[in-house]
Order: sequence, then C-alpha cells, then structure tokens
Amino acid sequence: MAEDYYRVSLADSELPTQWYNIIPDLPSPPPPPLHPGTLEPAGPDDLAPLFPMELIMQEVTGESYVDIPGGVLDVLRLWRPSPLFRARRLEKALDTPAKIFYKYEGVSPAGSHKPNTAVPQAYYNHQEGVSRLTTETGAGQWGSALAFACAQYNMACEVWQVAASYRQKPYRKTMMEIWGAKVHSSPSDVTDYGRKLRAENPDHDGSLGIAISEAVAVAGADPNTRYALGSVLNHVLLHQTIIGEEALKQLALVGETPDVLVGCTGGGSNFGGLSFPFLREKLAGRMNPTVRCVEPAACPTLTKGEYRYDFGDTAQMTPLLKMHTLGHSFIPDPIHAGGLRYHGMSPLVSHIYDLGLVEAVSISQSECFAAGLQFARTEGIVPAPEPTHAIAAAVREALACKESGESKVILTAMCGHGHLDLAAYESYLSGAMVDLDLSEEALAAALSQVPTLATV
Amino acid sequence: MAEDYYRVSLADSELPTQWYNIIPDLPSPPPPPLHPGTLEPAGPDDLAPLFPMELIMQEVTGESYVDIPGGVLDVLRLWRPSPLFRARRLEKALDTPAKIFYKYEGVSPAGSHKPNTAVPQAYYNHQEGVSRLTTETGAGQWGSALAFACAQYNMACEVWQVAASYRQKPYRKTMMEIWGAKVHSSPSDVTDYGRKLRAENPDHDGSLGIAISEAVAVAGADPNTRYALGSVLNHVLLHQTIIGEEALKQLALVGETPDVLVGCTGGGSNFGGLSFPFLREKLAGRMNPTVRCVEPAACPTLTKGEYRYDFGDTAQMTPLLKMHTLGHSFIPDPIHAGGLRYHGMSPLVSHIYDLGLVEAVSISQSECFAAGLQFARTEGIVPAPEPTHAIAAAVREALACKESGESKVILTAMCGHGHLDLAAYESYLSGAMVDLDLSEEALAAALSQVPTLATV
Repeated sequence: MAEDYYRVSLADSELPTQWYNIIPDLPSPPPPPLHPGTLEPAGPDDLAPLFPMELIMQEVTGESYVDIPGGVLDVLRLWRPSPLFRARRLEKALDTPAKIFYKYEGVSPAGSHKPNTAVPQAYYNHQEGVSRLTTETGAGQWGSALAFACAQYNMACEVWQVAASYRQKPYRKTMMEIWGAKVHSSPSDVTDYGRKLRAENPDHDGSLGIAISEAVAVAGADPNTRYALGSVLNHVLLHQTIIGEEALKQLALVGETPDVLVGCTGGGSNFGGLSFPFLREKLAGRMNPTVRCVEPAACPTLTKGEYRYDFGDTAQMTPLLKMHTLGHSFIPDPIHAGGLRYHGMSPLVSHIYDLGLVEAVSISQSECFAAGLQFARTEGIVPAPEPTHAIAAAVREALACKESGESKVILTAMCGHGHLDLAAYESYLSGAMVDLDLSEEALAAALSQVPTLATV
Repeated sequence: MAEDYYRVSLADSELPTQWYNIIPDLPSPPPPPLHPGTLEPAGPDDLAPLFPMELIMQEVTGESYVDIPGGVLDVLRLWRPSPLFRARRLEKALDTPAKIFYKYEGVSPAGSHKPNTAVPQAYYNHQEGVSRLTTETGAGQWGSALAFACAQYNMACEVWQVAASYRQKPYRKTMMEIWGAKVHSSPSDVTDYGRKLRAENPDHDGSLGIAISEAVAVAGADPNTRYALGSVLNHVLLHQTIIGEEALKQLALVGETPDVLVGCTGGGSNFGGLSFPFLREKLAGRMNPTVRCVEPAACPTLTKGEYRYDFGDTAQMTPLLKMHTLGHSFIPDPIHAGGLRYHGMSPLVSHIYDLGLVEAVSISQSECFAAGLQFARTEGIVPAPEPTHAIAAAVREALACKESGESKVILTAMCGHGHLDLAAYESYLSGAMVDLDLSEEALAAALSQVPTLATV
C-alpha cells in the first residue's frame, strides 16, 4: 500500500465468510428478554410466529462465529467488501495530527449498512419457505433495505411507513416500490389497529410503534409471512459484524490500529457492527481502543436513559428487553436523523455499555450537520444525517488531538449517504434548523412511563 | 478470480495514470471547429478567454496519451478504480446465454461519471490561478460534479441551472450548495441577457442554451473566472477514457473480451469514455467488438440528425462544430433522461460514427424504464434515467442471444445512479409515463433551422 493512499480496498476474495458473536467473549451474558405475561425468559417458541428458526437460533447462539451462507455472500458481493477511507482532506482542513479513517457503507444499493442484515434475514426466511416479509420503516432506510433484499430472493415485501414520513418523503416510497415492495402509509386500512386509529383521526401522523404493531399483526396472521426487524436484536447486530471484520483487515493493510472508534447509535446495529470485532481484540488484549457511542441530544438513550426492562414498542406487544430506555411511550422530537429516533437501545449494546466497555456521548443536530457539511466539502461524500453524529464526534476528537499534539488513529462508522436526506441539508443551509435537545422535564416525564416489573 | 465472481475490483494501485487520446489512431482526424465570424478553424487563442491553456492544449493534442497529474489522481482515488460487475442475476432473469458486464460510475460522490472530467478541469484552472468556475446545468449532474470538484481545490463555483429544473428538482440545488456552489435559476438577474429574458417573461422556464450563455458571459467578463463544459469537447472525452482503461483491465482479470459494447449518448462523454480504449484495441486488431451508441427516441441525434456544421448552443455563441445535429434551436421534449437532451453530439463521436467505427440505435423511454426497473430488481442498483438506455440495449442484445443461442459478452456503460431521479420512476410505476419520440414533422422543422456555412 502506497504511503499516500486514500481508499483502502479489500480484494473481493477477502470478503469475510463468518459473522462474529461477541457474547461468549463478554465477562457476562446480556440479561434475557422476558415474556411480558409470565416475566420468564422468552424462549425460541415465543419468537417462532414472527421469525424463522435459523434467526432465532442465531439470536441465542453461544458460538463465537456463525458461517455466512453462500446464498448470502453472493448478494453481499454486489457491494462488499466496502471501502475504508483515510480522510486526509478532512484532517488537513482541521489541521490535526490525528489520522481519521471512515468505513463507508453507503455503497450498498440501498445506501446504508441496513442491507447487511436485510439480505440474510430474507435468505433464511426464503430457505424456510416463507414467501412474504413485513416490516415497519420510519425514515425509510430499513424499508428500502428489506425491499432490496426480498427482490433478490423473489419474495414479497410489505412495508408500513410512518404516515408523516410517507407524506414527507415520497421518494423513499418510490425506492421501495422500484424493488417491488408494497408500501402502506401507517396507520393503514389493512389492520384492525390501523383502521381503529384512522377512524379516530383520518390525518393521523402515525409512529414507529404503530407501524411495528401493524407489520407484526399481518405477519402473525399468515403462516407464510414473517416479520423482519432492522436493529436492536442480537442476530441483527451479528450480521452487521461483517463491517468491523473488514475494517480490521483494512487497517492492518496500512499498519494501523485505532485509538478511538466512534459510531452513531439508534438501535445499535451500525455501532455494534463496526465495534464488536474491535472489542474482541480489546478484550483479548491485542489492542486498546476507546470505543464511543454517539447519540442525538434529542434522544440520548445511553447518556440519559435508565438501564431497565422496558417494551421495545409503543404498543407494548414485544417481549420486555433490558436496555437503556427513555420509556416506550417516548416520541423523540423530529430531528432529521430519523434512524436514531428510537426510545431504547439494543440490549447487547446496553449491556456492553453497562459493563464499561464502551463510552457514550450525545451531540446536538446543528453541530452534527456542521460536521457533515465540512465532511462533504472535504471528502466529497454527502453523509446521511445519522452518521454526521459519528463525524461530529471524530471532529471533536481530532481537534482535541490538535490541542494535545497527539496523533491518534480515529475510526469512524460512516453508515450511509444522504442522497435522500437533502431536505435536511437545505434546512441547515437556510438557517432554519434548530436543536431539539431533550429537556430535563421531558426526560423525567418520559422515564415515569417505564413500567416496573411489578406493574407490567 | 473465483469462477462465481460478481464484482471485479481493481486494486487501488491499478488506477490508470494516463488518459487515452483516440485521435492519432483514427484513419482521419475530426474536422476542426470553425470561428463563426471567419469560418476559419478556431485556434487556441479563440478559446483562451474561456478555458485554461492546459485544457486547450489537450483539446488539440496529437499525443496518444496524456499523463494524469498527481493532484488529480489524489481526488479520483476517492472513488476510483470504479467497479465492474457481472450482471449474473439479470442474465438469469433474462434466461440468456449472454454474459452481461456493467462498468459502474455511480460510486463517485456526485453519483455519475461527470466528476472524472470536473476534477481535472478544476485542477488545471486552479493551477493557472483561476479562482472561480462557471457552468450551466440542466438535470443537475454536471453542476453537482463541478461543485464537488471546485470544493476539492477551494475554488468558487457558480452554476446556472435551467429554471424549470431549478423549480422541479430543488434537491439538486441543495447538493450543489452542500459542496459550496452558488446556484442561479436561469434566466437570472446576474447577466444582461438573463435580465432581458426575465423582463419579457418573469416565469421563463429557461433552457440549456440560455444557461450556457449566462455562464459564458460571466466567465468572459472576469479575468479570474473561467467556464467549464461537461461534455462534447475533445478534452472532456479524453478525461473520461479512464473508465474504459479500467474496464479493459477488469475484463482481462476474468479472461473476457467484449463482443458488444453499449453506452448512452447525450453529449457523448460517457460513451466515449468507455468505448475509446476498446476502439483502440479494435483498430489495432486485438479485439473486434460491435460498439453501439444508444440515444433517446425523443432526441435521436446520430440516428436521425444531419452531420454538418452547427452551433453548440441555442444562442449561437459557440464556434461552429461539425457534428450530428437536430439543429441548435431544437428543444427536445422533456423526457426524464435530462442528460441526453442535447441537440448535437460530440464532434469526435460524430466523426467516429461517420467513419463507420460505431453503430447507433434510438430507444423510447418506456422501454428504457422497463429495463431499468428489471435491472434494479435483479442487480440492486437503481440506475439513472440516462444509463437505462444502455441497459435497454443490453437487454435487447441478451434476448437476441437467447434466440440465437450465442454466448456473447456484452459490456454496458452504467454511468450513474438514480437516487435523485426517483420522480421519474414514480411516473413510470404509476403508469403516467408516455413516450415522446421525435416525429418526422418536428424533425424536419428542427433540421430546417441548421445554418449552411454560407448563411452563418
């Protein structure tokens, strides 16, 4: 590798063939999900109506590595290995001695890291004879990814898109339809729950919680249909570890090890995907990076939430998950990083944070967009609103290096492009964007809604 | 390379370091541009007010290869070498024995092949002390590319965007502004010509010809400002040959040579970029591909235009170019492939077509979008409207192979993604799209406006 490299490419033959499961390497396993009725640990049977058995087994596996099937690798090869970049122009603009690397997932057809799990989820369902998948989507990244994945296996895909987003972002719907998905504005006329809400309010804006309820209801009512989730669960994070495995190889190619790793956290899958392989190396004593979650100040789950059992959805249909939560009834203000507007956090990321293996910080959206704009003007790529949080954290770290004179190696999770988020940049450029940081009052009110196990 | 490859990646070290100039290899050189006043060949001095000397020298060079400066390569490395894909899923869907390859330029920050020339154009201007570039843009691909390139060299960039497009595609404007460009709706209040047109009609839709006139006028009036053109000219096609040079290496890696090469033609730069290195091999007798231009039936320059001297712009400000033209006053119907709506054709591509070295075919937009949709559902990538023309031609060829049983190798120029063109797909999916093929009457009327050299 030349000294003046910008992009670090892995040969196509270097595509990882196993996913990494961090759980066996942790000092203790994460607390199990609980059945909301019995408060006993939820078992595979509880999940079987919604997920195929292979994914349920991955959810609870004790193996450190899971082989990626050839039928999945063949699709991942359309964009993987994804590139790692050295952000030399951003470094120069910041006048920092730090070395900034970013692992870029925007090269996937859907433009984000989400297809890394959408593809195996569609594959395993297809293998088990499922002909249709349902899901919800807010900003649209996950719905797009699942639509793309289902097209690869000739499966039907139905997406419930939050009504407000459906109306504001018609192009996301078009993208899903290009890949053959059927897109419903949620609440919809398709489910009892949706019809009830529409009868009460024909102009209902919907919410992610309502959309989940509709997608789950349709999947549960048809034996040939299953439901797919884009983040939070163990098997989703497992699939995303291909990001970190590639990045490890790429940094090794240029002889670097990270001192600091930063990734944005919504449900936790992008962060977990990049960081878990590096945490494996850290736990084994082979490197010692600081690993930092970056969340929006409008939805500061790790930094301000409580670590306790709560529902994964607003309608209280899911198992109880032990996680950092702002309360299942909490609806974050409409910041542009729609993919980070989740009231909870992956139980696995929550557990790792609780163990002290990773740090967390929250950042306001105007600082994130300022960093995103600087990134676009120096590195060329227009980042999605979500990874601008990781970029802002990398910029903070690089500027601290400028102060201290340290030449740290910073690894950044750049999980997607912003081609379908340009209205957010327009808002920033026009000066109309305001920060929507969570207030102490709203935080207290949200947390008061979290159930105690005695009150479920 | 494994037998079951999908993506053929070149190592970063394999980035070509020279552009290829096809002119010395042709049996005769293309006819020169003529000064509209004297009808004498236009010389470097005629172009000096608009372009830096290095680009003017490239426009007329007799060398077969031009070194790519290090300061250009450093920026191209952000996305180059670009991937070559084997479209195995599309082949399977078509049930064809043909092998379909596509060279994908959508990985550039601006999402198309345009940055391949925007970057060197900005570089050479910067080297010669120019601090600002002006240009026009219709659909927005070229304006985006130049805005990105100028940001890389800290140059100012001003773009005149056709008013109708400025109003209909606000996100393209935002993208240019993200990279720091100033975007004017054309006709604008900035130039005499723009003010005159706005006084006549405040709601003027504008045209590419008007936007060129404004960008040229502003560049001509300031010694520190130059003008940049995104297609048509020899130096632009020269810069794009990096596409074909990479594709040659990539096909060699998998032991294939193309039997058929298809690329869409608007101004000719994407087509020339991919095809010229292969034409070099053909002229040298090392391979013998059929090379085919694909143009929209709404703007069939090569297949229905006349090969004669005409103006490059509506306002008759440019030198006279010998090219296949529908007449400089011809305004194609508003098909979605905005980048192919040019009344003329690159003089170099026109000459090569006239020599019989390449073929041409025109296709209606509904067939193109049908092919684009099938491509998206099989290969995952959503193509821009322009390359759906090349895809449709590849599909035709692959289906002919199915009939004949031939296993031809088809190479397709996939010059960009459609993330900012989803409204066009929405129109197709909703059944609202109509073909806008040029009628014989409109063709005759348009051609009657082409000047004879005696009447200029």
